[in-house]
Amino acid sequence: MSEVKAFAAKEVAADLVAISIERRDVTANDVAIDIMYCGVCHSDIHQVANDWGGSKYPIVPGHEIVGEVIDVGDNVSNFKVGDLVGVGCMVDSCQTCDSCKNDLEQFCEEGMTATYNSKDKHLGGRTFGGYSQRVIVDKEFVLRIPTNLDVKAVAPLLCAGITTYSPLNQWNIKKGDKVGVIGLGGLGHMGIKFARALLAETVMITTSEGKKEDAKRLGADSVLISKDAAAMKAHKGSFDFLLNTVPVGHDANPYIELLKVDGTMVFVGAIEPLEPIHGGGLIMGRKRIAGSLIGGIKETQEMLDFCGEHNIVSDVEMIKMNEINTAFKRVKKNDVKYRFVIDMKSLK
Amino acid sequence: MSEVKAFAAKEVAADLVAISIERRDVTANDVAIDIMYCGVCHSDIHQVANDWGGSKYPIVPGHEIVGEVIDVGDNVSNFKVGDLVGVGCMVDSCQTCDSCKNDLEQFCEEGMTATYNSKDKHLGGRTFGGYSQRVIVDKEFVLRIPTNLDVKAVAPLLCAGITTYSPLNQWNIKKGDKVGVIGLGGLGHMGIKFARALLAETVMITTSEGKKEDAKRLGADSVLISKDAAAMKAHKGSFDFLLNTVPVGHDANPYIELLKVDGTMVFVGAIEPLEPIHGGGLIMGRKRIAGSLIGGIKETQEMLDFCGEHNIVSDVEMIKMNEINTAFKRVKKNDVKYRFVIDMKSLK
Repeated sequence: MSEVKAFAAKEVAADLVAISIERRDVTANDVAIDIMYCGVCHSDIHQVANDWGGSKYPIVPGHEIVGEVIDVGDNVSNFKVGDLVGVGCMVDSCQTCDSCKNDLEQFCEEGMTATYNSKDKHLGGRTFGGYSQRVIVDKEFVLRIPTNLDVKAVAPLLCAGITTYSPLNQWNIKKGDKVGVIGLGGLGHMGIKFARALLAETVMITTSEGKKEDAKRLGADSVLISKDAAAMKAHKGSFDFLLNTVPVGHDANPYIELLKVDGTMVFVGAIEPLEPIHGGGLIMGRKRIAGSLIGGIKETQEMLDFCGEHNIVSDVEMIKMNEINTAFKRVKKNDVKYRFVIDMKSLK
Repeated sequence: MSEVKAFAAKEVAADLVAISIERRDVTANDVAIDIMYCGVCHSDIHQVANDWGGSKYPIVPGHEIVGEVIDVGDNVSNFKVGDLVGVGCMVDSCQTCDSCKNDLEQFCEEGMTATYNSKDKHLGGRTFGGYSQRVIVDKEFVLRIPTNLDVKAVAPLLCAGITTYSPLNQWNIKKGDKVGVIGLGGLGHMGIKFARALLAETVMITTSEGKKEDAKRLGADSVLISKDAAAMKAHKGSFDFLLNTVPVGHDANPYIELLKVDGTMVFVGAIEPLEPIHGGGLIMGRKRIAGSLIGGIKETQEMLDFCGEHNIVSDVEMIKMNEINTAFKRVKKNDVKYRFVIDMKSLK
C-alpha cells in the first residue's frame, strides 16, 4: 500500500478538502496510473451530497480519469509504462455473469464496482475516485486513449461521452436519421457531437433561446425551442430518435409527440419519477422509450476510438484542484461550458 | 345503395337498438360481405359511451367481422363469391404515405378509416361497423380466414388477436424467451395463446388468484400473482418481454422491475396517463417500454395464417343480436370468458 494525496468530502454535502488515502499495491492484473486530468461530473456532486443515499465518507469523487501508466502487474500485456490511458465509472465487476460476458459490466449481476463510493474488494472499505494523484485499476477496466486527441479534453469522454454515445450506438443511429438531443449541458453537448459525427440530422432541443448559437457551434443543424408550441407542432412526428439528457423528472409527453412511428426516446439523465406518461402517446405510432446507463468497457473503448477517428473531445474549462468547491457551485447553476476538468498536477 | 339492418346507439351511452343503415353499391375495388359473426370489443362500449370523445351518432359498432363474400367489383381478383373473409378495425387508408407503404395502415399519415365512427369517403357521414347484416369493403382491407378454424371463434382475432400478436411479432419473440402477459381478459387470453404457440416460456401475470386455473388451461406455463411481493421479487429481472394488456392507467414500475437487461414491456391497452414511471428503473438495465396498436393488413393476414397453422381461436360466448345490451353490461364487469361474439343470423 502507498499513501496518495486526494480531495475528499468528509461528510454530507461538505466542501472537499485535501486528505491522504491509501492505494493498494500493484497486483498481477493491475495497472498503476498517474492521474493527469479528472473531469467533474454532476453525479460527483450528488454523491458528495448523498442525494441518492448510500454515500460513505470520506468520498473521493472522480470517474472521468485520464493518466499515464507508471507500473503494470505480471499478467498485464496490453498496457505498458508510459501509455496514455483512461478510467471511467467502473473499476471492477464479477466478469463471469451473463451481463459481464455480454460486455455490459455496468449491469453486472453482482453489482459493478464503481470507481468511487463502492465496496473495495482489495482493501476493504470504499473505493476512492480520480480527484487524487494515482489510482490502481484492474487491467480489464483500463481504456486506451487515442494519442491524437487534446488530452485535457478527453477526460469527460469517460462518463459524459460514453453515456451519450452508447444509446446512439445501441439504437443504430445512421446517416440521415433525424436525431434530437434534449438538454444542452455536459451530456447534451457530447450528444450533439456524436449525432453529428454519425451523420444524423442533428437538432438541439432546449428550453433556452440563449443556447441557440452555442448549439450550432457544437454541430447542431438546427435548434428547436421546446417552449415554442408552434415550432414543436411543426416537428411533430418527425424524429427517428431522441436523446433525453434532462437530469431531473419532467413531462416527457411533448417529446414523445415529436417521435415518428417506431421512434425511440432514450433517457440518460432522469433517474427520478417522470410526470405521468400517456399510454395512448406510446400506442399511437408504437413509440418507444428506454433508458441507458454509461456503457460496457468494450463499447467505451469503441467510443474512444471513434473520438480518435473523428477528433471528438469535450468542451472543457480547466481548473486547479483547490478550485473544486467553486466548480461544484457553478455546476449546480449550469454555469460551465460544458465540463470542468481538474489539472491533477495542481494537487501537490 | 342498399338498406341493411343494424344495431346502433343513437346517443351517448344509450342502449343499442335496431335501425336501418345504407351500404354503398359495390365499386370496382369492393368486396361485399354477408356478415356471419361479429365480436364485441371493449372499445365498442367506449365509443358508444363517447369515452374518448369524437363519437357521432348513430354508431353501429363492430370491428371483429367474419363473413362470406357475396359480390366483388370488377378489379377484385383475390376474392370470389363464397370465400370466408374477415374485416378488422380498418376499412381504408390513403395507401400512399410512408406508413401505408410500410404496411402500417393503422398509422396512415392521413388517418386510417376506422370500420365504424370514422369519416366515410364513399357516402359521406360516418362508417358503420359489423353489428349489421352486410358490409362493403375495399379489397385491400379484406382478410382471408383459414377454413380449418372454428369460424364462430375467429371474429375476435381481427382485433384482440392482431393487437396481441403484433407486439410479439415486432419484438421477435422466439422459443425460450420468458414472456409475461399482464391481465387476463379479451386481449390477455389471446396473448397467452400466441406466446405459447411461439414456444416462449409463458407466464400469466394477474392480480387475481382466481384466474390461475384458467390461465393454465389457456396455455400459461405458470402464473405470477402481482400482489404477492415475494413472488414478484423472485421473478425480478427475469423477463425478456412483457405484454401489458391492462386497459387503464396503472403503476407500471413493478412490472418494469420484472424485466431483464434490455427487456421490453409493450402496452396495448392503457391509453390513459400511467402513474409516474421512475427514470432510474429504465436507466438501470436499459429497459424499454413501448406501445402497439392493432397491426397492418399484411401482418393481420400473417396472424390469421399463423392461427390456421396452430389452430388458434378465441374463447368465445355466443350471443344473439338482441342480447347485446346485456353483453355490454357484462363486459364492463369483466364477466366474459373471454369474448362475446354475435351470431348475425339472429339479426332479422
